Amino acid sequence: MVQAAAVNIPSLSATNFATVYNLFSLAIACLLFTSLYLVVSQRQVVREYRTAVVVSATVCGIAAYHYFRIFNNFQESYPAGATIDAPHTLSNIEFNEGYRYVDWLLTVPLLLLETVAVMALGRAASKKLLVKLIPASALMIALGYPGELSNELGPRLLWGTLSTIPFLYLLYVLFVELSRSLDRQPPEVVHTIKMLRLALVGLWGVYPIAYLFPVLGGDFFGGEGGFVLKQVGYSLADILAKAAYGLAIYKVARVRSRLADPAYDDDHAVEPVAAGADGLPARTAVAGSTPVVNGHAPKASRTS
Amino acid sequence: MVQAAAVNIPSLSATNFATVYNLFSLAIACLLFTSLYLVVSQRQVVREYRTAVVVSATVCGIAAYHYFRIFNNFQESYPAGATIDAPHTLSNIEFNEGYRYVDWLLTVPLLLLETVAVMALGRAASKKLLVKLIPASALMIALGYPGELSNELGPRLLWGTLSTIPFLYLLYVLFVELSRSLDRQPPEVVHTIKMLRLALVGLWGVYPIAYLFPVLGGDFFGGEGGFVLKQVGYSLADILAKAAYGLAIYKVARVRSRLADPAYDDDHAVEPVAAGADGLPARTAVAGSTPVVNGHAPKASRTS
Repeated sequence: MVQAAAVNIPSLSATNFATVYNLFSLAIACLLFTSLYLVVSQRQVVREYRTAVVVSATVCGIAAYHYFRIFNNFQESYPAGATIDAPHTLSNIEFNEGYRYVDWLLTVPLLLLETVAVMALGRAASKKLLVKLIPASALMIALGYPGELSNELGPRLLWGTLSTIPFLYLLYVLFVELSRSLDRQPPEVVHTIKMLRLALVGLWGVYPIAYLFPVLGGDFFGGEGGFVLKQVGYSLADILAKAAYGLAIYKVARVRSRLADPAYDDDHAVEPVAAGADGLPARTAVAGSTPVVNGHAPKASRTS
Repeated sequence: MVQAAAVNIPSLSATNFATVYNLFSLAIACLLFTSLYLVVSQRQVVREYRTAVVVSATVCGIAAYHYFRIFNNFQESYPAGATIDAPHTLSNIEFNEGYRYVDWLLTVPLLLLETVAVMALGRAASKKLLVKLIPASALMIALGYPGELSNELGPRLLWGTLSTIPFLYLLYVLFVELSRSLDRQPPEVVHTIKMLRLALVGLWGVYPIAYLFPVLGGDFFGGEGGFVLKQVGYSLADILAKAAYGLAIYKVARVRSRLADPAYDDDHAVEPVAAGADGLPARTAVAGSTPVVNGHAPKASRTS
């Protein structure tokens, strides 16, 4: 096994400690409550998009768990000094970057799964994509880890480059193979797919940048400054690529639910809620809509 | 980066410690259980108001999480003295006001979101409001933080004043721009909107007062007394502006659900519940209403 001690920098100023500490807590709050929000909101979308929403919630939940671990580990690795203003020096407990890689190994394939699920391409097309995307994404994370354990330029670049190969394959599948099957999709679906894959790839771009901070060299990037920037980069990237992205998936699912079933349309600005001839709100009079009471469509309503 | 040590006062009397400690615990109880109550009650309102209720629950949940952190941090920063009556002197662990600002950065924009969501202005009008309100509210919190890190009059007033600019813009959007679109709304909706925005702004007024306690000067406000008053002010303001306000949002959603769909009307005072010919409560005889028993629409009721 590779020794991990090299990444642990010897001390952090009180201000740097507080910055990283508050950011980890922010990440916990964002990820945990996005997860809970998505779970309790799953009935706001039609059944076929609930898998996408619940997988998004799972991704955020897994990440929140790992940030709890990272937060506690950080406090143990860099305990308070003699006074509030004193630097926090490294204890005998390693600051374990392994948590991040375990997290990504689980969440990155799931992020691809939630993306494909919300595209609603059909079972065969989804499966064809996922058998390529999921192994490639797991390989991408696994190959990055040995490089993370080193602060030296050589190994970090070597493993970083190896990790880029499956990433380029992901790009090929998402931007070349997927595009070929887009002709058969309605225009608004094509737009959603293009937007989601762009967001995914754009947000993932932050990780390799943060990964490279410690090797940029110099006193700043090679030491405390590089460590703080890397933690800030990874944490913000996780908040955006998991919590914000999960909310974007939910938003897509909401829009598509509304198009699929007018009962899921909350906007009554144009057509205000008013009792119709049958005493039900006017919205249920829309042709073909399914009136929903407490989240359940009454069985006999379609015939009325 | 600014040093945060200035806000940590050197010691707290046993009574002052107990006051703040019990208040933090009260805040946890109010916020956590309001959050849970709102989540488990979301089905008591029609679908279009569930987002408002679940966002209210999320706000209270995020705040409860931060009060757990604040509570534990407070115990570590001011550990017990040699005896029960001895003052609690500051340890080497900073009392971190950063938690409050991280909390507000997330919850204040969400409070505006839940308010706009329950207004049910329609998608276009809501979006137009939120793209102004959300960035302005986040800016208001971010600009207040540097001032919080200082107990000196100058920086605290400077950042406090800068933070007031986006707050005034919020007032403009809520009281001038929003009012212009109120003509198109039914009178009872206009009444609700006016009440909610007044409550919001009234409750938010407590924060700047608490913010200014430590700079009012003198031995009392500049020291231990100012610190205790600030914690009491922030905590009571959080309980009112999040838990009590969340329950008010829920109440509005309940009233509007009742108006939109008689199945959501629980009031049988005029028409007491009694078994009808079909064994269902008498209210099911109301023309066109959708009977709801235990949250499920009886299968055959539509045909009766």
